[in-house]
Amino acid sequence: MPNKITTLSPLPLSKVKFESDFWSKVQQRNREVTIPAVWQRCKETGRIDAWKLEWQPGMPNEPHIFWDSDVAKWLESAAHSLASHPDPALEAQVDELIDLIASAQHEDGYLNTHFTVVKPQMRWANLRDWHELYCAGHLIEAAVAYQQATGKRTLLEVMCKYADYIDTVFGIEPDKKRGYPGHEEIELALVKLYQTTGEQKYLRLAKYFVDERGNTPHYFDQEAIARGDDPAEYWAKTHAYTQSHVPVREQNLPVGHAVRGMYLYCAMADLAVEFQDKDLLAACKRIFEHTVSKRMYVIGGIGSSKANEGYTEDYDLPNESAYAETCAAIALVFFAHRLLQIECDGRYADVMERALYNNVLSGVSLAGDRFFYVNPLASRGSHLRWQWHHCSCCPPNLTRLLASLGLYAYSYSGSEIFVHLYGSSTANFHVDGQEIRIVQKSNYPWDGLISIAIETSQSVQFVLALRIPDWCRHAKLRVNRKNEQLRVDRGYAMVAREWQNGDQVELLLKMPVEAVHAHPAVQQNAGKIALQRGPLVFCLEEADNGKNLNSLAVNSSSFQADFNADLLGGTVVLQGKARQPKLGGWANALYRFESSDVEEIEVLAIPYFLWANREPGEMIVWLNRDMATQSQLQRRAT
Amino acid sequence: MPNKITTLSPLPLSKVKFESDFWSKVQQRNREVTIPAVWQRCKETGRIDAWKLEWQPGMPNEPHIFWDSDVAKWLESAAHSLASHPDPALEAQVDELIDLIASAQHEDGYLNTHFTVVKPQMRWANLRDWHELYCAGHLIEAAVAYQQATGKRTLLEVMCKYADYIDTVFGIEPDKKRGYPGHEEIELALVKLYQTTGEQKYLRLAKYFVDERGNTPHYFDQEAIARGDDPAEYWAKTHAYTQSHVPVREQNLPVGHAVRGMYLYCAMADLAVEFQDKDLLAACKRIFEHTVSKRMYVIGGIGSSKANEGYTEDYDLPNESAYAETCAAIALVFFAHRLLQIECDGRYADVMERALYNNVLSGVSLAGDRFFYVNPLASRGSHLRWQWHHCSCCPPNLTRLLASLGLYAYSYSGSEIFVHLYGSSTANFHVDGQEIRIVQKSNYPWDGLISIAIETSQSVQFVLALRIPDWCRHAKLRVNRKNEQLRVDRGYAMVAREWQNGDQVELLLKMPVEAVHAHPAVQQNAGKIALQRGPLVFCLEEADNGKNLNSLAVNSSSFQADFNADLLGGTVVLQGKARQPKLGGWANALYRFESSDVEEIEVLAIPYFLWANREPGEMIVWLNRDMATQSQLQRRAT
Repeated sequence: MPNKITTLSPLPLSKVKFESDFWSKVQQRNREVTIPAVWQRCKETGRIDAWKLEWQPGMPNEPHIFWDSDVAKWLESAAHSLASHPDPALEAQVDELIDLIASAQHEDGYLNTHFTVVKPQMRWANLRDWHELYCAGHLIEAAVAYQQATGKRTLLEVMCKYADYIDTVFGIEPDKKRGYPGHEEIELALVKLYQTTGEQKYLRLAKYFVDERGNTPHYFDQEAIARGDDPAEYWAKTHAYTQSHVPVREQNLPVGHAVRGMYLYCAMADLAVEFQDKDLLAACKRIFEHTVSKRMYVIGGIGSSKANEGYTEDYDLPNESAYAETCAAIALVFFAHRLLQIECDGRYADVMERALYNNVLSGVSLAGDRFFYVNPLASRGSHLRWQWHHCSCCPPNLTRLLASLGLYAYSYSGSEIFVHLYGSSTANFHVDGQEIRIVQKSNYPWDGLISIAIETSQSVQFVLALRIPDWCRHAKLRVNRKNEQLRVDRGYAMVAREWQNGDQVELLLKMPVEAVHAHPAVQQNAGKIALQRGPLVFCLEEADNGKNLNSLAVNSSSFQADFNADLLGGTVVLQGKARQPKLGGWANALYRFESSDVEEIEVLAIPYFLWANREPGEMIVWLNRDMATQSQLQRRAT
Repeated sequence: MPNKITTLSPLPLSKVKFESDFWSKVQQRNREVTIPAVWQRCKETGRIDAWKLEWQPGMPNEPHIFWDSDVAKWLESAAHSLASHPDPALEAQVDELIDLIASAQHEDGYLNTHFTVVKPQMRWANLRDWHELYCAGHLIEAAVAYQQATGKRTLLEVMCKYADYIDTVFGIEPDKKRGYPGHEEIELALVKLYQTTGEQKYLRLAKYFVDERGNTPHYFDQEAIARGDDPAEYWAKTHAYTQSHVPVREQNLPVGHAVRGMYLYCAMADLAVEFQDKDLLAACKRIFEHTVSKRMYVIGGIGSSKANEGYTEDYDLPNESAYAETCAAIALVFFAHRLLQIECDGRYADVMERALYNNVLSGVSLAGDRFFYVNPLASRGSHLRWQWHHCSCCPPNLTRLLASLGLYAYSYSGSEIFVHLYGSSTANFHVDGQEIRIVQKSNYPWDGLISIAIETSQSVQFVLALRIPDWCRHAKLRVNRKNEQLRVDRGYAMVAREWQNGDQVELLLKMPVEAVHAHPAVQQNAGKIALQRGPLVFCLEEADNGKNLNSLAVNSSSFQADFNADLLGGTVVLQGKARQPKLGGWANALYRFESSDVEEIEVLAIPYFLWANREPGEMIVWLNRDMATQSQLQRRAT
């Protein structure tokens, strides 16, 4: 019989603290600017007051079907922040919000602003298109996070009551609806609710929602008929949009709406562990492999089409029209993180890191108060960050991920401690009952030197597993200033020893500028390269390089990395040379034969995640590749 | 006072005959395959029988609003063909059709199948969206062409009666509708009807339609209100779609639906001449200049967007999603040809030629029985020729242009004879009452040598004006085997002399392979080149070069032209070298750092107009430019 499905355990938020450098600054901005800004927008747009249930037809700010989820994600963000950074004022603000939410709960446990004040007759009438169970899921996640951060149970009890009620509505029993959400989310939330409360029925309900999905006769068609609608007139045309085209265990690749899919796959991974369900895990792994090998942008983005906020076909990764929704990259982080815990394989951490440092971070402005919903890989200058968006799922999704980033940095299992994310941080573990403190110092992602000090009151045997990222082709390890042979197992350098207090580990991940090549089937990137250094994908912006970025041709070997403390809050930039046909002399011509001279110009690339923080202008990730060979480049130089 | 607006006169169809080579073969295919095929499709789809007016609700083949125009254009094609190639069987077929059409005319002169049998209550109810006046225009053009070809007046009289009736319906008089067509066409047709019949009222009606266009209050809004529709819900959102957003004399650039616009501009040019209207001519010239300097594909295509079958913004010329409708390129030929007659400037002939040899000819398959409506400049293999199309405007538009190509080859004015299009042909002129025959021999466009013999019974003084195309950078002229200095005036080498019978002129237009560069503002072509030789734009197809054409980089200087008699019916091909990253070894990776070796491969380019005549596959016009300098290329060779 195959092995049991086991998992690593992420270190809880209260045990991890980012210090002084990259992530610490991101988290500080998140706490001080972004979380307050999201609250402010929720307040201004009526999302908070909606819980008063005072809205009536004709009044402004009609509560929308997804508003509850926006508030829930803000609340979850605040909870995660409180877990590592106590803040009595914020906690009081959350408590007040929780009282307001609790006051909106129906006697039977039902809790949803839209369906209470706008469509009271339509409860559970359209699971396919409306977001009731989705909103419930986010509220459950918020309740769990707040209880974990503060020990306070008010919201958790509200949500248990709601979940208890939902459990009476949905299921395979004859008196229940055989429904499941059109926008997945509650499934993974119910697993968390079970893990926090120990209440088995929440886990069973999650399993029911996942198992029922895609069965025939199709529930969404049946409920459409019950509403008097023609299922054939479903606007999305296919149940693949909601990943309910076939049962989940038969799914082999990511389809439809990207965020919905990833939330489903997360729940599938969770349930695979809880129920030792190898078929479910196999489906997760098939879908993940297909995603990252055929449908993922180099920035870790997924979902290339605006039409379905999702996938089109394999290798179809347009740059200028890329959708690559911020939420979808966040959801990919969630999914990759779950598979990482199960499979203990660095390739999942590689994807998690790629999405995190590029598509996710791109979603929020340098100042922390403007956002991208869509993350193209090329722009003519009209793609701008917005302060708020009608469909404002991304900002509070970002805040909750960034506030809970500690969860993603370390894991442990028995006597193994895994380091997944680098950056200055402290982490407290127990190994064999012995408390151990890991003190990591690093300028990552700006450079690849990681120093780790072990603090322990007595010597202890454990394996320190240090991730060797996929981008790293040369790593060096020193323990107590002595070089050590790297023993890499599934992407982690395994350093086993009897650790003493004060032991020092140095890991050097060489971080040259690399040219990323895309699989030739990606038509949009043929003949092009992207610049990457460490986990960061770089781009060229008009602010640094003028217009006509499409006409540049580059050879990555000309690029050097420098830290520029004065640019964009301090960042590594890549400076190099590009060749470009001279642009002048066109007058009124649209086409001409004259072979424009090629000139060599200096160009500067910035990390992709920092783009669109200056005056609007062109941006480009995939650059024409200068096809000159190395020897030709040397001749050029002479 | 500025000069009078004068024009060259095209030589009538009966006076020009293409012989033995390129255009002769195209016209032969047009006569023998395409015109019969279009008839067959019209017959099969009910377009012919529709004139019997027997259709009733519930029957198949409901006559569509544009069906009459399809039949009219077929009839016009047959008429043009008969003008140079008499064919009693075809003429009898046309006569029978004309009787059928005549039988469908109402007492009052009205003539339209759709509005007779499908929407009899809706005559003239929606000029904006329906095609009544458009269909009338095409029937008028057909009637004029058939009278000119055969002298037969039946259809001409039917159409005069219809035009007389239309003249009672539309105009500025209080009892008339202030309407004009949503799809322009009748304006230019009425000018032809005037020119053929001498009846001034047709010219005045054409002028009314053009002058009324875009006035406020807007007729299309008023008729919408009259129908009970909300003008604000106009599907196209803007009257620019029909070029009625402002009066025509205020228009500066091509907007909206490309075909509609070009038909309007043709009428504007015609009316500018007839009424000596310099403002109208100035508008035509502004629009033409804007079109060709900012909104035209290198294949002479216009209208980059499917959404409006028309223009988007300046320099927006996407390749794979190019619309570049065949009809639009045909209409650009019409417009350029009119301005050429007025301005006597080769730049109009250059555009005419570019559209003709590339986007127009691309519209029909090598065998002559399959068609392109849309002409992309890149394809992944799914863009296929169709046998027929619901909206089948293009095939009969192609047949009528190709059958009437003689009109575009020569013009005259007093004692000047202009040669616009090269290719073996004979043309008969009168100069000072003296009949002169021009016998042109040339393999054009396969090579650039043109030999012209003058046949005349006595010596005669005239200027032979030979076009020096914009693509030609080196031309040589010999008269009676003696080199002559080229005196080029506005794109024409002016050869003035007292011509004797048997005089020989040789013009050599050097025809190297050229790299076309697009203006840097055309983002989609930045860093790319297209291959052109003579008037032909070339492309690479998968059938010759395998897949992944996007990843090739080329330097045009490596390409050599050869005539391949066995390929695609005999064609010049360009053989050259391309550099490409090696494609193998990707396994399951989507991205990788390894710098794929660059390999040099042999590639073969075919004329764009010949693409999609073999097995489906990739096609590409704009190729990545190999940025190597000339000296580097020489080093590579050593």
